[in-house]
Amino acid sequence: MQTKFLLQESQMPKYWYNLQADFPEPLPAVLHPGTQQPVGPSDLEPLFPMALIEQEVTTEREIEIPEPVRDVYKLWRPAPLYRAHRLEKALGTPAKIFYKYEGVSPAGSHKPNTAIPQAFYNREAGIRTLTTETGAGQWGTSLSFAGSLFDIDVTVFQVRVSYNQKPYRRAVMETYGARCVASPSELTEFGRKVLADNPDHTGSLGIAISEAVELAVQDPNTKYALGSVLNHVLLHQSIIGLEAMQQMEMADCWPDVIVGCTGGGSNFAGIAFPFMGHALRGGEKSRIVAVEPSACPTLTRGRYAYDYGDTAQMTPLTKMHTLGSGFTPPGFHAGGLRYHGMAPMVSHAKELGLFDAVAYTQRECFEAGVLFARNEGIVPAPEANHAVKGAIDEALRCKREGKEEVILFNLCGHGHFDMAAYTSYFAGDLSDHEYDEQELAMALSGLPSVNA
Amino acid sequence: MQTKFLLQESQMPKYWYNLQADFPEPLPAVLHPGTQQPVGPSDLEPLFPMALIEQEVTTEREIEIPEPVRDVYKLWRPAPLYRAHRLEKALGTPAKIFYKYEGVSPAGSHKPNTAIPQAFYNREAGIRTLTTETGAGQWGTSLSFAGSLFDIDVTVFQVRVSYNQKPYRRAVMETYGARCVASPSELTEFGRKVLADNPDHTGSLGIAISEAVELAVQDPNTKYALGSVLNHVLLHQSIIGLEAMQQMEMADCWPDVIVGCTGGGSNFAGIAFPFMGHALRGGEKSRIVAVEPSACPTLTRGRYAYDYGDTAQMTPLTKMHTLGSGFTPPGFHAGGLRYHGMAPMVSHAKELGLFDAVAYTQRECFEAGVLFARNEGIVPAPEANHAVKGAIDEALRCKREGKEEVILFNLCGHGHFDMAAYTSYFAGDLSDHEYDEQELAMALSGLPSVNA
Repeated sequence: MQTKFLLQESQMPKYWYNLQADFPEPLPAVLHPGTQQPVGPSDLEPLFPMALIEQEVTTEREIEIPEPVRDVYKLWRPAPLYRAHRLEKALGTPAKIFYKYEGVSPAGSHKPNTAIPQAFYNREAGIRTLTTETGAGQWGTSLSFAGSLFDIDVTVFQVRVSYNQKPYRRAVMETYGARCVASPSELTEFGRKVLADNPDHTGSLGIAISEAVELAVQDPNTKYALGSVLNHVLLHQSIIGLEAMQQMEMADCWPDVIVGCTGGGSNFAGIAFPFMGHALRGGEKSRIVAVEPSACPTLTRGRYAYDYGDTAQMTPLTKMHTLGSGFTPPGFHAGGLRYHGMAPMVSHAKELGLFDAVAYTQRECFEAGVLFARNEGIVPAPEANHAVKGAIDEALRCKREGKEEVILFNLCGHGHFDMAAYTSYFAGDLSDHEYDEQELAMALSGLPSVNA
Repeated sequence: MQTKFLLQESQMPKYWYNLQADFPEPLPAVLHPGTQQPVGPSDLEPLFPMALIEQEVTTEREIEIPEPVRDVYKLWRPAPLYRAHRLEKALGTPAKIFYKYEGVSPAGSHKPNTAIPQAFYNREAGIRTLTTETGAGQWGTSLSFAGSLFDIDVTVFQVRVSYNQKPYRRAVMETYGARCVASPSELTEFGRKVLADNPDHTGSLGIAISEAVELAVQDPNTKYALGSVLNHVLLHQSIIGLEAMQQMEMADCWPDVIVGCTGGGSNFAGIAFPFMGHALRGGEKSRIVAVEPSACPTLTRGRYAYDYGDTAQMTPLTKMHTLGSGFTPPGFHAGGLRYHGMAPMVSHAKELGLFDAVAYTQRECFEAGVLFARNEGIVPAPEANHAVKGAIDEALRCKREGKEEVILFNLCGHGHFDMAAYTSYFAGDLSDHEYDEQELAMALSGLPSVNA
């Protein structure tokens, strides 16, 4: 009874997969926030190296993974695919449950899949410094790790409340040699302005983005890096699904259902897009389910419209499922899923009917995560608990319907840095705070007028 | 250029290896603390199930790993062996550095290798509850994990100061369903006595052991579990070295030098004993190096003598390298290496000249760990940093001597739960506290008179 399906290094994919090649309709254009005209490469050049801008727009199906990136991937990839025998038994389901585990990366999540190539392409372009923002710390850790390997200085603006509450995350970033700065900070004009108004400001992701971008555009040797949402980020994550396809074949199975959790969309795209493309090209079709938190229900309650990527409304306009850039989700524990928008490619796929979306409250997700930990051993990150919950519900449906379906889900990271959330869960301190309906309505009414 | 050497599940060892079969001289007897006569199985029965007592004394070379244990091992085993290409390059050494990585287990260290079989054999014997103690939390986490899989209630007495300082560890244990109790506690007579004298007592490993043992001996359905030192624990850890032997063959290399860190001795024995036995049976001989903290230098400064395993002097007497059961090592960050004694089998092997020992201070070990993290990506546990430091020093010796030796070390766990130690290191707050010479002399002079 095989539990783990492992690929040898020689079987690691040599190409990323680009769903843009197989979309029946092309992605809507990205618009300049001032002119509302489609942006060109030169608009993005202050922030990203040309190789990544090209990946942002290309419709080529396969993009070669550079050898130095593959060399680093080998530190943890190919990542294992597991059959969850014990969880199946605990649920009494006839379904076969498989999960791809991305927590084996040094940072503990799928984020290094894109941090590594982003660092590589920037280094190739002569960039010596990268700036970024981080909330919970998962992305900041990954970019710090990538910077240490490609000799790039990394400055991470960490939202001040996280900086103070999660000192372990900061310690990991510093161990990798990065500079971790509490945001708002004195390092930027914007940060100084915020602090002048309120010296005790606890920060927000929107402010941290503004600070990171401000530093990047000031210096031609400095660029900015983003950990989700963008097309090139989703491209890099496709390695998850490409490996999983090989591993499902090793297991002599093909998924009837694929489940992933969605915040910005990158781990979901990573597991799902290669299977979507396979079906679009005439291959076997899997039902695909995105799971999001009901406190930030971008796909299930948001509008598909042009919107800004940041709170300060400085980024280009992209067409996506959004709750409005003015929407502030309540403070729940899956920090990686607290984003008002959704990756444009994921949003486009949703509009094309390529997958379904469901929303769960955080307590039912923690309950699922604890059941998973007690049977499979791995303690999932709060974000990953959403995928666990989605997969368990599919398995229970199979039980009710007496169906032996094959379920595959992406376990995008472990929860070792998030144990305070489990403590709150056991103490009964977690609430299923929903968003404020009035605030959502207001945020949606503030969408830019390009949609009118 | 291959980085990772992976075994398939079918290649996972089916037998543990017992060095007792190949010792040129048998282990000294274990003595009853009262009579000073060799202990028999019945003396140990209140604490351990008979299957483990048999493993404690057997001189059979191969002990079959039960199928249900192998099934659980598959959740993370076989564990990977890595070639540290980047570290070699950073050091500019002609040596080839390999490391076996045990941090892939759900608990993040090698400890589940023995927690799983201990839970299994106890369950087979009808035991429903296990008690144990934990300091830093690594062992408590592992036994909690094992208990969740074999339907055994686990009560962990965690030293109160750790219980308060490391809430994440406690949260992991509770996620696995264990009961985690701050020691001294009101649950035991001994705990109540300690608290009556001092209600604010911060606890010690010695007190926690006494509490765990007290609960176990009171109830025939409850036994006690220990995470290191004992022969059966070292036996279970042999799977590390057995896998590494196969993986070194895959890499077409054989280690000239093998390095492991030593506290109680279990991860060191795990990597080293199979290679020692191979040499004792006429195979190729590797030089083996044990690395210990200079603040608790059991092998380099202790005496080889009969001593108690616990501070309260209630355990049987075993012949081992010891600093005296009255010795309290200074509070440094590698909590897993703070033990006054050394596993009797490791001590015996040392007396037989089968390996060398060196001691390092904690700051040089953290320095080595940071260099490792910035090149190989994995942030090692403070304990594992000692092995990293030992391996780096061997690699630098090879550089000086122009030798292309093959170095293998055991990276026994990751540091995700120990990032506060790294924060202290970066802040310059770590001191290289040595032990007190006078205290050591006094502790050694208090060794039981059987040695006279």
